[in-house]
Amino acid sequence: MEITFFGTGAALPTKERNTQAIALNLDPYSNSIWLFDAGEGTQHQILHHSIKLGKINHIFITHMHGDHIYGLPGLLTSRSFQGGENKPLTIVGPRGIKNYVETTLQASLSRLNYPVTFIEIDDQLHYHHEGFTVSAYNLNHGVPSFGYRIEAPTTSGKIDVASLREIGMEPGPKYQEVKNSDSFIFNDKVYQSSDFKGEEKVGPKIAIFGDTMPCENELKLADNADLLVHEATYIDGDRSLADSHHHSHINDVLHLLEATNSKQALLNHISNRYNLSDIDVIYAELQNQYPNLKFKFVRDFDTFEI
Amino acid sequence: MEITFFGTGAALPTKERNTQAIALNLDPYSNSIWLFDAGEGTQHQILHHSIKLGKINHIFITHMHGDHIYGLPGLLTSRSFQGGENKPLTIVGPRGIKNYVETTLQASLSRLNYPVTFIEIDDQLHYHHEGFTVSAYNLNHGVPSFGYRIEAPTTSGKIDVASLREIGMEPGPKYQEVKNSDSFIFNDKVYQSSDFKGEEKVGPKIAIFGDTMPCENELKLADNADLLVHEATYIDGDRSLADSHHHSHINDVLHLLEATNSKQALLNHISNRYNLSDIDVIYAELQNQYPNLKFKFVRDFDTFEI
Repeated sequence: MEITFFGTGAALPTKERNTQAIALNLDPYSNSIWLFDAGEGTQHQILHHSIKLGKINHIFITHMHGDHIYGLPGLLTSRSFQGGENKPLTIVGPRGIKNYVETTLQASLSRLNYPVTFIEIDDQLHYHHEGFTVSAYNLNHGVPSFGYRIEAPTTSGKIDVASLREIGMEPGPKYQEVKNSDSFIFNDKVYQSSDFKGEEKVGPKIAIFGDTMPCENELKLADNADLLVHEATYIDGDRSLADSHHHSHINDVLHLLEATNSKQALLNHISNRYNLSDIDVIYAELQNQYPNLKFKFVRDFDTFEI
Repeated sequence: MEITFFGTGAALPTKERNTQAIALNLDPYSNSIWLFDAGEGTQHQILHHSIKLGKINHIFITHMHGDHIYGLPGLLTSRSFQGGENKPLTIVGPRGIKNYVETTLQASLSRLNYPVTFIEIDDQLHYHHEGFTVSAYNLNHGVPSFGYRIEAPTTSGKIDVASLREIGMEPGPKYQEVKNSDSFIFNDKVYQSSDFKGEEKVGPKIAIFGDTMPCENELKLADNADLLVHEATYIDGDRSLADSHHHSHINDVLHLLEATNSKQALLNHISNRYNLSDIDVIYAELQNQYPNLKFKFVRDFDTFEI
């Protein structure tokens, strides 16, 4: 899978960073893209990437602040003209996201040429799609703000053609049964599928957080995750500013990474108080402070394999 | 005065053009900026210009299509942080603009730190501010779409200090009276102010059009204008496409320029069917076809003195 950051700034766009948008490419599990948040100018950023709007079939909104949603109307209307026609789209987000989209489309006299399904979360969500499981829990940001835990499907191991040939089974449709079941019958004999394929591969677990102060639900979302994507709005000085604005301090985020045994953190939603070179300096200091943790501040258009 | 184009594309943003936004700098008449339309990404474009959002004190919306308004919420919320605090803003536009702004700010849990006055137009508008007169008339775009005629104030001629000295009046507050009145009394004698200052200077007249097919009200808006800013969505081939989409064909626009004795036209709202080099080719052909007319296709960030 691949994650691409289209907007890594907090609150206001700057010359260096657009406001929040993250694209998760589900390949090889599925030929689709999931978008997390859509700050203003997200469709403009996507113009400079190979992703086509028509391939986005889910949009998850963490919370309703403008820097996370003001790009949604434009992206939805442009999707009608960029490969989205008749391609269903699901929009998941806090209660209010449906009304926001519908009133904006109505105000702008716009109609979409594809069906949209809204899933509005009040407290938590457990959603399944194409083998993926998405859980969402409310965080602590003063307004409903959700974190999403995306678990990719577990895939069966690679078929061992040689060993199947030894029992007389040539490549063909029967291989699909071996791949997808625990046992199979061949020439009136029952076999254990696991004897004819590699280890099952557990899909990656990714936790993408909306803005938040430290809270209990973060632990559930981040538990043993392969990747955390977390806001890093306050990354130096004392934590009072973070607390007063319902955000996390960087130490909270790195503590979460450690406490949940997660593999790495990509730090996002960076305040325009810091320019790119400020971040490099602070990053070096933090790496000294936390030598055993794997984390990185992201920039617009950064892409990572998961 | 100066006009700057922040978005010159129609409907969707492209790599070459953002969607609609025009800034009118009222200097020397007033130390403020008026914005006409605010497509998505307008605040991003302004980041790359010297204009500060706090100096924008009027926003005129031609019509409610997304490519003209989706950048408004982000611009308004960012204005709170970019010099707009406590600085009043007037938003003028079709009925529905107030509801759109208010529902979007409410949905995004955002509050502005400055007062906003809304003026919603049903049919036409006659508005006066700091010596400027703004008239708006409904056009023909299938939805309420307005054109704005902006008339800058007439300014009195330059004071002739030498001639005033000849009658014994030294530079001082009295000069202001000479400047602003038709006559004045000095040493018990009545004088005609015009004898002591240059010719009055009539302020420029600018007509900025929303999307439209040709219609009667265009003539009122464009009459003897110093500058027309008009959509040029359909600039080649026959006019059936333009008609069916309630737009003008380029021949209509150039005919309007000629028929109203306007000085020049800046052609805007260009379809993404044409890239920049297509436009250069078509422009050359049109110049041959209309050798006596002064017109130009604009690009993002083009700025013109008026």
